[in-house]
Amino acid sequence: MLLDFNRMPSQTWSEFKGGAGDTVVRMYKDVSNRIMFMKLEPGSSIDYHRHEDSSEIIYVMQGTATGTYDGVEEIIEPGMCGYCPAGHSHGIENKGDEDLVFFSVVSEKQANQTL
Amino acid sequence: MLLDFNRMPSQTWSEFKGGAGDTVVRMYKDVSNRIMFMKLEPGSSIDYHRHEDSSEIIYVMQGTATGTYDGVEEIIEPGMCGYCPAGHSHGIENKGDEDLVFFSVVSEKQANQTL
Repeated sequence: MLLDFNRMPSQTWSEFKGGAGDTVVRMYKDVSNRIMFMKLEPGSSIDYHRHEDSSEIIYVMQGTATGTYDGVEEIIEPGMCGYCPAGHSHGIENKGDEDLVFFSVVSEKQANQTL
Repeated sequence: MLLDFNRMPSQTWSEFKGGAGDTVVRMYKDVSNRIMFMKLEPGSSIDYHRHEDSSEIIYVMQGTATGTYDGVEEIIEPGMCGYCPAGHSHGIENKGDEDLVFFSVVSEKQANQTL
């Protein structure tokens, strides 16, 4: 199934998850996955939150993300992922001076798998 | 959790899923997700296969992928995704003359969710 983020309309979420500024999102979602092309302008953030029964994978393509994962800061640069498995918490902030552009996949209902 | 694909060792899978040539992969996996930075050289392919109880999301960053999704050809260019939900089939081929580079997420056990 083809998803063309180049042509998909964008949505703007203000103060997403209690963060600062705007999160600009192009999103496809179904019952299993949310697939998102996202942009955070300098100074914008998605506040720290817990993924109870979903996981989130963020792949940074441009800019630098200052992430927080289970309370610990991590710097996510192009070519790196910030991964938040189910049962963990994360947030992300653009402290840089260029747009932060990343691709994100949120997969639902992954909490109760057999380890 | 930080995953740095810039520093992760690569694996080479020859004739992956019965396809042609080499698939070069940098991968992190756990019970819920396989998170992969992948490269297919010109002429290489991942043959058509079914995702029974997992989904796969491919985000193309460089080159052009000739995909097949449920038997129908689709051209996946940079900024586009090829999405194969659980219960569907897909394959991918690099018919171009430059490397095909893409980011991929395979999420496990997504077949029996309530629609």
